[in-house]
Amino acid sequence: MKVENIAIVGLGLIGGSIAKALKQNTGYNVLGLDIDPLVCDDAKKDGAVDRIIKPENLSEADLVVLCLAPETAYVFLKDYLKYIKKSAILTDVCGVKRWVVEKFGSMCQNGPVFVGGHPMAGKEKGGYANSDPLLFINASYIITPVESTPTYAVDVVKEFALNIGCKKVTIATPDHHDRMIAFTSQLPHVLAGAYIKSPVSRQHEGYSAGSYCDVSRVAALDEYLWSDLLLKNSDYLSKEIDILINNLSSYRAAISSGNREELISILREGRVLKEEDNKESI
Amino acid sequence: MKVENIAIVGLGLIGGSIAKALKQNTGYNVLGLDIDPLVCDDAKKDGAVDRIIKPENLSEADLVVLCLAPETAYVFLKDYLKYIKKSAILTDVCGVKRWVVEKFGSMCQNGPVFVGGHPMAGKEKGGYANSDPLLFINASYIITPVESTPTYAVDVVKEFALNIGCKKVTIATPDHHDRMIAFTSQLPHVLAGAYIKSPVSRQHEGYSAGSYCDVSRVAALDEYLWSDLLLKNSDYLSKEIDILINNLSSYRAAISSGNREELISILREGRVLKEEDNKESI
Repeated sequence: MKVENIAIVGLGLIGGSIAKALKQNTGYNVLGLDIDPLVCDDAKKDGAVDRIIKPENLSEADLVVLCLAPETAYVFLKDYLKYIKKSAILTDVCGVKRWVVEKFGSMCQNGPVFVGGHPMAGKEKGGYANSDPLLFINASYIITPVESTPTYAVDVVKEFALNIGCKKVTIATPDHHDRMIAFTSQLPHVLAGAYIKSPVSRQHEGYSAGSYCDVSRVAALDEYLWSDLLLKNSDYLSKEIDILINNLSSYRAAISSGNREELISILREGRVLKEEDNKESI
Repeated sequence: MKVENIAIVGLGLIGGSIAKALKQNTGYNVLGLDIDPLVCDDAKKDGAVDRIIKPENLSEADLVVLCLAPETAYVFLKDYLKYIKKSAILTDVCGVKRWVVEKFGSMCQNGPVFVGGHPMAGKEKGGYANSDPLLFINASYIITPVESTPTYAVDVVKEFALNIGCKKVTIATPDHHDRMIAFTSQLPHVLAGAYIKSPVSRQHEGYSAGSYCDVSRVAALDEYLWSDLLLKNSDYLSKEIDILINNLSSYRAAISSGNREELISILREGRVLKEEDNKESI
């Protein structure tokens, strides 16, 4: 399948970064679509897109990339799926995949071909103003085909992922994606907020080093986007929160009872896991 | 008071970095003492110290800096305090201050003057091999005098802190230090281990971005040092673990019950706190 025109729906942090990366790295014709006319002007001015289009012009695109929060993407598709040509490939960048793949997949039963995707990159600050053509450098891109997804469509999304700068493509089931992401990404976001709410937090200046900054960093999230993502993965995420609370309770017990042997042992377990992790990522 | 000779007891990550920073930034005579003869050889070879000394030679030092874990420092002082001259200043770099200040302070009632200190810097990997003269650049240094501590002694430690590269000195009571540090440093260390123990953690490759690395980073700690530090602050640390578990439970409840309004509200609270925090640190 030959891709010439790629439409980016939603020019926020992710969509804007994708558009800029495509323009920087490829010769594709990049079509951009956003609800905010000021963002459209900026994207045009920056050369992030070749053209700003309206939903009706989606028919020109061979590949359509939905860069919207799950619910927003759903509402968009309900209204405008009809304009996307049957032979096109439709993909998304949402951080949850079971809900998206089931919902959008069934809407696309008669074409276009839907393939779920998720680039593992982000920033604390969203919006087009923070978009960056280098956002995906060294990132991994997860693609979540289902049994019926044709191989050529997966290949198109794979090439797209590499074109925007990702260094690695991981193929996974939507279920496996959601189970992993609950731990690697959603839990740290929940944790950052839970951590920074300690009453002593606001007096931390002068008492904090790297670890404070690391844990609290992603508390500055977009609550509308993230509430949508977290609730669409509530089963796996709740499980991970329970596991973390349980593990924290073991440390709590050893610390408050003054059981040094036990504390050394559980601290050691954590160290060994992290050292193995560091070795693997070399 | 005129300081000419500074003795560094323990040439690990912190002691080694202090010695190197002093040699790089000042004209003091730096005397080093370590239990490991290989470390002593390296420190001499690197020019991190002017001389390696034995405990008996501590009498030459005007300022003695204990760079040992609390219990080890205590054992060291029991044996060798007698060699430190009464007119000298003794300080430490331990991460807990109530226990240290009370214990060492009462041992030093007839001199030398003891002043508690804590540089807010570190690395996941300890030992002399990882020491770095730039470790304290941009770090804050906390000094915890008590009522009876003479001002000149605090000033000497303050100058020392600035000399090794710290950008800011904070004066606090031992109690306030320990309360803050439980949250800003000890809790993230406990958390890193508790987080990385999730069963899915070992399959994270391909599914992780910055937040996974940030939260898990400090799991690679020295369990002997850290068990000592955590247990000597068990009251404040247990309280912080409880607060965190409690906050996590609020997120858990909103997520598992699908209460989007509540979830948006608690996510927003976290974002606002972090944004205020970011503003303050600009």
